[in-house]
Order: sequence, then C-alpha cells, then structure tokens
Amino acid sequence: MILVIYAHPYPAHSRACAALVAAIRDVEGVQVRSLYDLYPDFDIDGEAERAALESAQLIVWLHPFYWYGVPALLKHWLDVVLVKGWSHGNDGHALQGRDCLWVTTTGGDENAFSEEGRHGHPFAAFEPPMRQTAKYCGMNWLAPMPVRGAHEVPVETLAAAGKALRERLDAWLAQKAGAANA
Amino acid sequence: MILVIYAHPYPAHSRACAALVAAIRDVEGVQVRSLYDLYPDFDIDGEAERAALESAQLIVWLHPFYWYGVPALLKHWLDVVLVKGWSHGNDGHALQGRDCLWVTTTGGDENAFSEEGRHGHPFAAFEPPMRQTAKYCGMNWLAPMPVRGAHEVPVETLAAAGKALRERLDAWLAQKAGAANA
Repeated sequence: MILVIYAHPYPAHSRACAALVAAIRDVEGVQVRSLYDLYPDFDIDGEAERAALESAQLIVWLHPFYWYGVPALLKHWLDVVLVKGWSHGNDGHALQGRDCLWVTTTGGDENAFSEEGRHGHPFAAFEPPMRQTAKYCGMNWLAPMPVRGAHEVPVETLAAAGKALRERLDAWLAQKAGAANA
Repeated sequence: MILVIYAHPYPAHSRACAALVAAIRDVEGVQVRSLYDLYPDFDIDGEAERAALESAQLIVWLHPFYWYGVPALLKHWLDVVLVKGWSHGNDGHALQGRDCLWVTTTGGDENAFSEEGRHGHPFAAFEPPMRQTAKYCGMNWLAPMPVRGAHEVPVETLAAAGKALRERLDAWLAQKAGAANA
C-alpha cells in the first residue's frame, strides 16, 4: 500500500498540489490522507495515523513548500505521530525498511533555488531535516521530487509533473511486484 | 527591545529551555512570548504577533529541536505571522534590518551532530530553512546557538549555557547602545 500524507492548508484552493493528487489518486493501492481536512483544529489522532502507516510500504509526504519546509500541520504530524518506542528508540521499529518519498510544490522562478536566486540555496540545502527524520526512523529515502508550482506555471506543466509522479509510483509498484515474484 | 519567541510544547516540563529562559528573563528590554501558553489551541493571533515584532530590534527564536527543526506551533507562527506584504514581498519590509538569533536545545550525545553520529549531519546542515526564512524577510542572521540539552546534561552545564546566552544578549545591547551614542 502507498500512503500519501497530504498537507495543503487550503485543499480547495490548491492548484499545483491538487494536480499532483488528482494524477495519482487512482493508482493501485494508493490511499490519500488530507491532514487539513482530517484535522482542521490540529487535533491529530496519533493512533489512527500510526495504524494507517503500519500498512504502508511507501509513505509519500506531499505538500506546498512553506518557509522552506512542511506546513505546520505536517510538522505537528511528525511531532505527534513519530514517537519514541514506535518509530524510533530502542523498541521502535514500526517504519523500518519502508520507503519514503518527499514531494513538494515550490514558488519562485526557475532560478530561485540557487545561490544567486531568491531562495539563496539549491533545493538540496533544505532536504536534511526531512531526509534525516525519515532515516532516523529507519526508512529508505527516495530521491525527492520538488515541483515548481508557482502561479505562472502553465497547466500543461503541472499535468506533466502529475504524470511524472504517477510514473514514479507505477515504477515503484512494478519493482515491488517483481521483487515479490523473484 | 529583544523579543523572545519561545516555543516549548510543555513549558512546565522543560529543563534545558526553561534554564535558558530563566537566565535571560530579566535582561533589560527582554520580552518573552511563550507560544504554547498563549496559543494552546494553535489559534495564533497574527496581528498581535506582528505588533509585538514591530517594536523588536532583536528577535530570538528559542525552542527544543523537534525532528530537526522547530516544534509545530512555531512553524505555524512562521506560516501565519510572516505574511506577504508585511515581512516580505514588494511592500513587505517590516522586519528589514532586524537581528535574528536562533537558540535551540538538542538531544543526543556529544558526537550526535556529525556524519558518523546519530543525527548524520553537523548541526549546520539543519540551519538553512531557518536562516533563509530570516534572510527572506530582510533580517540579519546572527550565529545560531545550539545547546546540548539532553537529560543527562548536568544542571551546571545548562546554567553555563544560560549564562552564555545572557552574555550574548548583553553584548548585543551594549553594541546597540554604542552605535546609538556614536
């Protein structure tokens, strides 16, 4: 099962993230949990989230890039769901060996993520907190997928990004099926 | 004025952060805003926060390090307080030229923040999101102050960290006073 933890503060107003979710919603075995729909008051049910994670082999974090990281509710999800003794610590191995894919939509022009650009760094400079969180829980960190989702990006480009994400999930499923049959 | 944005999810149970706050609370001009006391329901008053920021010349972010970054409520603070047209964007210059100091208490042993250590990176690898957020708002990024605050750290070590933080604020005030008199 592929679990998509989707965190857009205004799901109904999303353009880029919505295009990505629409492109993968019907992929075999995909389950999308929209955190801001589930927990508009930040009252995350840690037990329910952990139960959902336990049946996932691939965990996808999908959100708009807010101040160089995850929106607050997804940070809250990390803080309250990934607890010692479950995901990490001596007896915490629940996520060991799962795959983890980070997909985030960003603003700015094409050059924004560079030393000279408005964000002052390549995108990779902002990856360590998420990557190390996954690794600390024993997950395999897949190559992240930053998607340029600024308002001026044409709908065709967003559709292509959605197709690329779908292809990644399909390839992941094919590889898993191959491994299971080998 | 020095504004300390303090974000400990359980202020009454804090050890390391509490020691730091206690060490600086009576420094001249210091105002501490404890976000989890002010907004236990995540219902941040953006107007009140912006008003507090407007009179600050030094903004201190002080919190325990949660999953390689800020606790969720401080992320929510960044997301809802630092809005386009106020702190950034064409007409947003409210924080231009202010100083920004990041103070965070971390766990793990002495070697934890290294390639071989349990956090897999030096502390500096986790700095870009906070530093670039400050810079994007036109603030001057001061050298951050990570404080080892694991449970086994003796109380004397925490007291020394509090003293060091207080000395930094005193030095900052002295420099400002010197600049004003020059």
